[in-house]
Amino acid sequence: VLAGNPRAVAQLITRLERDAPDAFLSLKSIFHATGTAYVLGITGAPGVGKSTLVDGLVRQARAAGLSIGVLAVDPSSPFTGGAILGDRIRMQGHAHDAGVFIRSMGARGQLGGLARATRKAIHVLDAAGYAIVVVETVGVGQSELDIASAADSTIVVVTPGMGDTIQTLKAGILEIADIFVLNKADQEGARQTLRSLQSMLHMGPAGDWDVPIVETRAHDAVGLDALWETIVRHRAYLEESGALADRRAARLKAEVLNLVERGLRTDILEALLVSPEYAAVVRSVVARARDPEDGAHEILQGVDARPERILLESQGAGNA
Amino acid sequence: VLAGNPRAVAQLITRLERDAPDAFLSLKSIFHATGTAYVLGITGAPGVGKSTLVDGLVRQARAAGLSIGVLAVDPSSPFTGGAILGDRIRMQGHAHDAGVFIRSMGARGQLGGLARATRKAIHVLDAAGYAIVVVETVGVGQSELDIASAADSTIVVVTPGMGDTIQTLKAGILEIADIFVLNKADQEGARQTLRSLQSMLHMGPAGDWDVPIVETRAHDAVGLDALWETIVRHRAYLEESGALADRRAARLKAEVLNLVERGLRTDILEALLVSPEYAAVVRSVVARARDPEDGAHEILQGVDARPERILLESQGAGNA
Repeated sequence: VLAGNPRAVAQLITRLERDAPDAFLSLKSIFHATGTAYVLGITGAPGVGKSTLVDGLVRQARAAGLSIGVLAVDPSSPFTGGAILGDRIRMQGHAHDAGVFIRSMGARGQLGGLARATRKAIHVLDAAGYAIVVVETVGVGQSELDIASAADSTIVVVTPGMGDTIQTLKAGILEIADIFVLNKADQEGARQTLRSLQSMLHMGPAGDWDVPIVETRAHDAVGLDALWETIVRHRAYLEESGALADRRAARLKAEVLNLVERGLRTDILEALLVSPEYAAVVRSVVARARDPEDGAHEILQGVDARPERILLESQGAGNA
Repeated sequence: VLAGNPRAVAQLITRLERDAPDAFLSLKSIFHATGTAYVLGITGAPGVGKSTLVDGLVRQARAAGLSIGVLAVDPSSPFTGGAILGDRIRMQGHAHDAGVFIRSMGARGQLGGLARATRKAIHVLDAAGYAIVVVETVGVGQSELDIASAADSTIVVVTPGMGDTIQTLKAGILEIADIFVLNKADQEGARQTLRSLQSMLHMGPAGDWDVPIVETRAHDAVGLDALWETIVRHRAYLEESGALADRRAARLKAEVLNLVERGLRTDILEALLVSPEYAAVVRSVVARARDPEDGAHEILQGVDARPERILLESQGAGNA
């Protein structure tokens, strides 16, 4: 993976997706090499033209001499590993270019699992040396926003006539979008969608970065230069303001928190659930001898959090 | 509350919704009196006529000499406590009937909070002696299904022409629906919707209870007798098969589990998050000296689950 071998990269991502027992150790051994890739998140409803836009961004990155890895995330798809026809076709266009890596990721199990696997896959592509990593998610639900927003620059794609969708989701989208793309900008209703986007952005909190709206026609390769330049400009803004380091630190912190929460929900909870004491408390609730909150409180007495037990010895060992 | 005073009932529900510090103690002191109410869950997309159906059920219950409490749950509404115009109008129809209690519950904060508050409100109405408790939820998303399915009988309401919605949600709906209502059954497309529902039910797992489809025209009070009889028949089936006791035990068990999980996410996690050890681990991850999973694993070392610490002495004390 560290040598950038695409086969090794694909294999490790597959093992991480499947939660293979030793995959954790592999990721641990390459993590020190992460932190250089620039991560782009792209989200939007089905049919807005994300795939074509991403294809255009791949060409822009290659023209700029940058290697690029793409993770096409579809929470509604059970497929993974590039098995989807559309992705195969996309991949063929770059099949002989070692500087391009494209992979589909579907929800094999739970959505939480997909978000976790995607975060790990970003680390793998980062460690493998891809200069740009694109995370493309289908849909505009909360989970897709969560995945797409785990990026350095988050791009939200809309098309003319999507006024209602924008209204419904404006709170969530306003918070995460660094750049809006109005794709199919020659279609009817484009002016109106543009205006409603603009007025929505005016209502949002004013910041140092004015969220731009880039008009594209990705199918005709129109506007892709402008989009690429806007991404470069956003990156420069983040680097110069120090926001990039803050964003990345916050992202890693959130990743640790997510894994700790998961550990509490699995390992720690499991230790309680299998105990006869837990069963006895539940029995007494079912018998209406105590109420659920009282029972839960009792069960939580079995858990003791003592941060002083956290070992700090391995701190800094990192590259082990 | 135990004397069935509607004002006391409303006040306790409000205190539980607001997570008032002593509300927990009030619920604890009345929980022993729960377990007699029959809980109906009713869900369906906006506009299918749930309110009118529920109004019809209220009349059916009253005609049968049964008191009835209605919790109208709307996750999209910030309003609570019967402040919604529509609910006020509904309530007026039964304003002078002490055997009817109607209350709106909106999402003041998080959805999880609403589900939790609704479960507690059911206990309050149960302890207050209402023979029937109806939980009506707007919408057909996962959270609405979760709330509606915490019932003895779950009723899913559809209208003609909702084929697509049914298709999208069929997995979730098939699992929870005990009774389907095809409301506005005189509208165009009713035959087709009925057939698609029937074929969907045929594809589902065969059980002892054949999920019936009741056709209604709630606005004209047509089909409400049949719906009421179907509910009575489902209740008899659950009681005779022993499934009712199992269902209620499973529901209380899930409620305890949910509260334990919440406690782990709040109190236990909090104890870790504020510690200097946690901050040190996160710093080492941000410095890429260790990977997030390794960091999370380290932090979880600070948590010790020892079920033997669970005190069982208060078991059976209940009515305290």
